[in-house]
Amino acid sequence: MIRLKVKEMDISTGGPLVVYLNVKDAEKLDLHHSERINVFNGKRFETAIVDIAESARVVPSGSIGLCREVKESIKAKKGALVGIRLAGKPVSIDYIKKKLDGFRLSKKEIEQVVWDIVHNKLTPVELTYFVAACYSRHMTMRETAYLTKAMTAHGDILKINRHPIMDKHCVGGVAGNRTTPIIVPIVAAAGLIMPKTSSRSITSPAGTADTMEVLTNVSIPLKKMAKIIMKTNACMIWGGSLNLAPADDLIIKVEKPLMIDAKSQLLASVMAKKASVSATHILVDIPFGKGSKVPSIENAKILKRDFECIAKELKMNVKVIMTDGRQPIGNGIGPALEARDVLYVLRNDKRAPKDLRRKGIMLAGTLLEMGGKAKPGKGAKLAEEILESGAAYKKMVEIITAQGLKHKNPDKIPLGKETYHYKSPKSGRVCRISNECMSKVARIAGAPADNGAGIYLYHHVGDKVKKGEKLFTIYSHNKTELGFAVDSLKNIDGFVVR
Amino acid sequence: MIRLKVKEMDISTGGPLVVYLNVKDAEKLDLHHSERINVFNGKRFETAIVDIAESARVVPSGSIGLCREVKESIKAKKGALVGIRLAGKPVSIDYIKKKLDGFRLSKKEIEQVVWDIVHNKLTPVELTYFVAACYSRHMTMRETAYLTKAMTAHGDILKINRHPIMDKHCVGGVAGNRTTPIIVPIVAAAGLIMPKTSSRSITSPAGTADTMEVLTNVSIPLKKMAKIIMKTNACMIWGGSLNLAPADDLIIKVEKPLMIDAKSQLLASVMAKKASVSATHILVDIPFGKGSKVPSIENAKILKRDFECIAKELKMNVKVIMTDGRQPIGNGIGPALEARDVLYVLRNDKRAPKDLRRKGIMLAGTLLEMGGKAKPGKGAKLAEEILESGAAYKKMVEIITAQGLKHKNPDKIPLGKETYHYKSPKSGRVCRISNECMSKVARIAGAPADNGAGIYLYHHVGDKVKKGEKLFTIYSHNKTELGFAVDSLKNIDGFVVR
Repeated sequence: MIRLKVKEMDISTGGPLVVYLNVKDAEKLDLHHSERINVFNGKRFETAIVDIAESARVVPSGSIGLCREVKESIKAKKGALVGIRLAGKPVSIDYIKKKLDGFRLSKKEIEQVVWDIVHNKLTPVELTYFVAACYSRHMTMRETAYLTKAMTAHGDILKINRHPIMDKHCVGGVAGNRTTPIIVPIVAAAGLIMPKTSSRSITSPAGTADTMEVLTNVSIPLKKMAKIIMKTNACMIWGGSLNLAPADDLIIKVEKPLMIDAKSQLLASVMAKKASVSATHILVDIPFGKGSKVPSIENAKILKRDFECIAKELKMNVKVIMTDGRQPIGNGIGPALEARDVLYVLRNDKRAPKDLRRKGIMLAGTLLEMGGKAKPGKGAKLAEEILESGAAYKKMVEIITAQGLKHKNPDKIPLGKETYHYKSPKSGRVCRISNECMSKVARIAGAPADNGAGIYLYHHVGDKVKKGEKLFTIYSHNKTELGFAVDSLKNIDGFVVR
Repeated sequence: MIRLKVKEMDISTGGPLVVYLNVKDAEKLDLHHSERINVFNGKRFETAIVDIAESARVVPSGSIGLCREVKESIKAKKGALVGIRLAGKPVSIDYIKKKLDGFRLSKKEIEQVVWDIVHNKLTPVELTYFVAACYSRHMTMRETAYLTKAMTAHGDILKINRHPIMDKHCVGGVAGNRTTPIIVPIVAAAGLIMPKTSSRSITSPAGTADTMEVLTNVSIPLKKMAKIIMKTNACMIWGGSLNLAPADDLIIKVEKPLMIDAKSQLLASVMAKKASVSATHILVDIPFGKGSKVPSIENAKILKRDFECIAKELKMNVKVIMTDGRQPIGNGIGPALEARDVLYVLRNDKRAPKDLRRKGIMLAGTLLEMGGKAKPGKGAKLAEEILESGAAYKKMVEIITAQGLKHKNPDKIPLGKETYHYKSPKSGRVCRISNECMSKVARIAGAPADNGAGIYLYHHVGDKVKKGEKLFTIYSHNKTELGFAVDSLKNIDGFVVR
């Protein structure tokens, strides 16, 4: 076995297990970029991927650079001698090739691939082949179910000894539309368990986690999450602070560059996150229509059936509803503005956006029926009663206090100090408000990184407006960014009055 | 525009244009791993891919680490302030997605993808999607021709004002089989031009470039290559020392991890390298049969037709022959042992392996017919005459002298000092010699990195042997490696006597 001296690289790859060899050593050992070696430190060893350092200043000949992940795994100290030996490829490489060749994968094969993903045994190139294979060759529902189960199993699982456990998911694409923080307190106030995890925004002006972070702490470890649920029946936290189905995040990372959305992976991703919190009853909201992610009712129906099929394979109780996704829902777009809307709804404030309130009640009502708290057709009424009685707001305060209260008074939430009022160029009727354009402007104004940035809508489609009347206000903390956002209005027709 | 201070990273990526931002700056700027930014230094700018440094020791907040490639491109000095701005994705990302969705690509689209590959505008993940798409969705012959032309165009081209220009290619998989250094001098001695480039070994014990490097210098720039050809009619150099169809090497790099061999890319790769040296007449050798790369005559016929189709699309004169690939050809396996065989053949030494001599004459004869130096059916006879007259050897010495002579006397080529003789366990007839096993043993013995390592065969399939008679000798410079090679014989039945 060849021995090399450990050089500390001070590089954290954030996952992949990489070692760096000097180009001369690599040639002598017949090792190439992306090949694997075993690195031994006494009895400890790790399989790592080889990267080549051209310059002796980076890694001199006779040394081996270890990324922090490898260094910690084998507990190697700077200057120590470690042994190296050529290692084979992970067996899942064969399965990825098999899928790329168009064959179905077995349960065991999919489990192995997911294990290798989670344990950082694959290079980004190898993982990309897996994603490309699943996308171009498609996966059957059976394969998708195996993928879901494997993604769930190779991660943490929240165990709650209660039944049923409620959850919801929205496929997204509608600006505003912050229904989760309305639904969860209603459902929890009715006595149902709802351990909700949400994501941060990737391409939108706010994810539910971004909005909730205005009101409370959303980075909460699994143990504390369980305690909060035992105390309040629910929680609303950022899924990224937990280790639920971690394979999913690694897959999404390589999907991003091509904006790939393999249906099998979308389904597996959603269902694995739900299975990881032991959810038994799941409501899926598919907003559809021009200007949303799902452009037509036909697309929505196909997606609905897919969710129903995967639910059947996984023996989970899933109800899918299709909703109108053609314009933003609620008035605020951006974390703070959405959080304010949510509190207005929960406090029965007259400034509450009616469309958001209505949709929240409808979704919460469906969950109450699914969870056996209301008879079929009676859920919405019960949800409205819980909301109007103040019980939902009380529950919200309980939950956000348990997580770490920041704001419960909507009028004290700070918004961007710089504002621009967009006024109607003519009298008429609002005929279109584009989700995409409004989201883009809100992002340019600074959302979600600047949580007080965004857009506040005074009108929705169908409203009559007069010339010069305010249609919406852009908020930003920063004059320059506000300027960019205002500039961007010139090239888009996101808010049309006719 | 945001300004950051240049930190020299002393990292050469070997291509990809990467910059490193501190994790805090990246968050503030809403920039993620693998996103692209424009980096401005005065009027110069470059588009680079963002990597995130977790530690301030690697890149402190307010600084930007530049890999050497970016630093040189914008001529930025350490400590200087450079501006950054979010950049869009290369347009070829859309075309890669299109191919992955199963659509055909146009000439322009393929050209753009190849341009972006050659100019390092794609991340390894994005390039992998392209390779996966071409593999799983297939390319038409028309698309393959566009790919070939684009790969040729975006690289250096050897221009020789002569016609015809001969070339050959072997699909490989047969141990020994070093016909190129026999064919080239015969063809060149007959007055034909043959600017031969070859590869080094990747998974075999020797590539033609490795074998030629025992006799002469093979790393030669394009200008000198042209001079050598003008002087001697030919050359035999390492393709890797030139910039011919560089996209091909970048594609092969991401194919390796999955051992993908998309037919379209195999064809484009071969033909682009030939087009880059302005070849007009190309002979393709497809060894087939059990134990070779092409397992059956059916597979060989399909591959033959593919080469003929792409040749037609490209308007190149290609002749494909299928040869017996079931056992090694020649006696030596490994750079020095093969080089010795080649010189034995060229010098009409009685130790010359008959099978190698025969195959060399046959292939050279075909090229003489294709190039108009012999009438149909008379090429082999002419080739044999040129060989026997000593003209081929004389031409070989001319060529290797022009490139930088190392050895012309086969008996002075140093071989590994450590040897092991494998003797026949019984009397009988040789019924099988496995290409794969012999190659593996030769590699374990040290070939090609140790160029004197390898195997020398005393017999071929069909020979009668006596118990205790030497079947082959393993050579190595190193006792330990020889030991490993001998050990490896236990588990394989690479040489079978019955």
